[in-house]
Amino acid sequence: MLTFIGLGLYDERSITVEGREALADADRAVAEFYTSHLVGATVDDLAAYHDIDIEVRDRAGVEQHPDDVLDAAEDEHVAFLTAGDTMISTTHVDLRLRAIERGIDTRVIHGVTAQTAASGLTGLQNYRFGKAVTLPFPYAHGADGVPQSVVDSIEANRERGLHTVVYLDIKADRDEYMTADVAAELLAAGWQDTLGVVVARAGSPEPTVVADRLSALAAQDFGDPLHLLVIPGDLHHVEADALATLGGAPDDVLEESRI
Amino acid sequence: MLTFIGLGLYDERSITVEGREALADADRAVAEFYTSHLVGATVDDLAAYHDIDIEVRDRAGVEQHPDDVLDAAEDEHVAFLTAGDTMISTTHVDLRLRAIERGIDTRVIHGVTAQTAASGLTGLQNYRFGKAVTLPFPYAHGADGVPQSVVDSIEANRERGLHTVVYLDIKADRDEYMTADVAAELLAAGWQDTLGVVVARAGSPEPTVVADRLSALAAQDFGDPLHLLVIPGDLHHVEADALATLGGAPDDVLEESRI
Repeated sequence: MLTFIGLGLYDERSITVEGREALADADRAVAEFYTSHLVGATVDDLAAYHDIDIEVRDRAGVEQHPDDVLDAAEDEHVAFLTAGDTMISTTHVDLRLRAIERGIDTRVIHGVTAQTAASGLTGLQNYRFGKAVTLPFPYAHGADGVPQSVVDSIEANRERGLHTVVYLDIKADRDEYMTADVAAELLAAGWQDTLGVVVARAGSPEPTVVADRLSALAAQDFGDPLHLLVIPGDLHHVEADALATLGGAPDDVLEESRI
Repeated sequence: MLTFIGLGLYDERSITVEGREALADADRAVAEFYTSHLVGATVDDLAAYHDIDIEVRDRAGVEQHPDDVLDAAEDEHVAFLTAGDTMISTTHVDLRLRAIERGIDTRVIHGVTAQTAASGLTGLQNYRFGKAVTLPFPYAHGADGVPQSVVDSIEANRERGLHTVVYLDIKADRDEYMTADVAAELLAAGWQDTLGVVVARAGSPEPTVVADRLSALAAQDFGDPLHLLVIPGDLHHVEADALATLGGAPDDVLEESRI
């Protein structure tokens, strides 16, 4: 039995009750924290809270050597843990398909995602978001600035009046996280006066939401990671009110986006 | 203090540990189940599990008479409960803004959403979904068939190769839920041979995923609610493999969507 469990966004208490119970029932727990990790809890915190040893795998360990996880899951109940939701990465879907091919029972216990938090914390409505994008570190995509595919996706969403979640590059194994001021500066090259919304520490007890022109966001410090950025499309009146009240958006910037 | 808590998708154990602890700390709990509700738990189940009285409000009670909730939150810790995430409805955002205007501390504790489950259970990648749509009962939008805005959104997503989550109409106060076969039949009028993916009972211990032509899905029975439908765009190879393995998608339908 292989149970995929999403740990949610922040610490050892971001998991669902169902996920916690499934983890308590597991014989072994394997985790990967290279796609994202919990800022509010170490692996030791998690292990102590759930009273189970947690074997952390690096990318190679999950992608190239999944067989020992699958071998174990044939005889024991293995829990596979990730930050956020559990199926956010193609690799995890692939692991599940391999398990099913081997006749292993699988189960998915969902976790809260950054997408959900981005909508919930900003007051921007879930059904008004278009395709999300990830902004890579310039060194990681081998060119200066913003990749054309990211520009195209944001533009295509904006043409339809839709909001865009911009996930910021994470190199968790090197403890490197793109911060929202860096992302805003990269994006401001093309959209200087465009409204952006920073969400910092989503899922923590004290998240921060700041809405302003991208050029203004580029000059601020939003504190500890993780950060993400939203580029709003058209704003319904409650959405505009929310960005003013929750994010301190200046009136003149909001006016341009109101419908 | 007013804490908005998302209960997640299915039963009393779909809440996060953090949400459960916040609810235990609350003096009063108010809930609305008209936008959605938990199929796997009654209000009495929730009240017994969390050992707190739960006052259920109808739409008018939340939208037109929020003042007694706000009055209470000035002196006590009030928990406001909803199925799924907590900020899915504009009304809840509005309630939070009113509370902040009155100087009441607010906090948001997220819940797992149907969007997250749709991606996680089907193996379709989160970042390849476009704008979501809701398919209303024909009597509710006052015309036969599928509203043009729904058609346009699905078409616009497909032109960009993106997947669409189709939420199905819920009249929770009348215990009416559109089922996926009905939705598939409505959509098959325009897209008979198009691939659709049914997700039934997302978040429950035994969710169902079925991938087939819309015309074929229209002839099946997917059991108890809640259901939703995904109209995939282009499929990466792991996504296509997932729809075959998890949803039994026929090879010839998948071939047309593979990239």
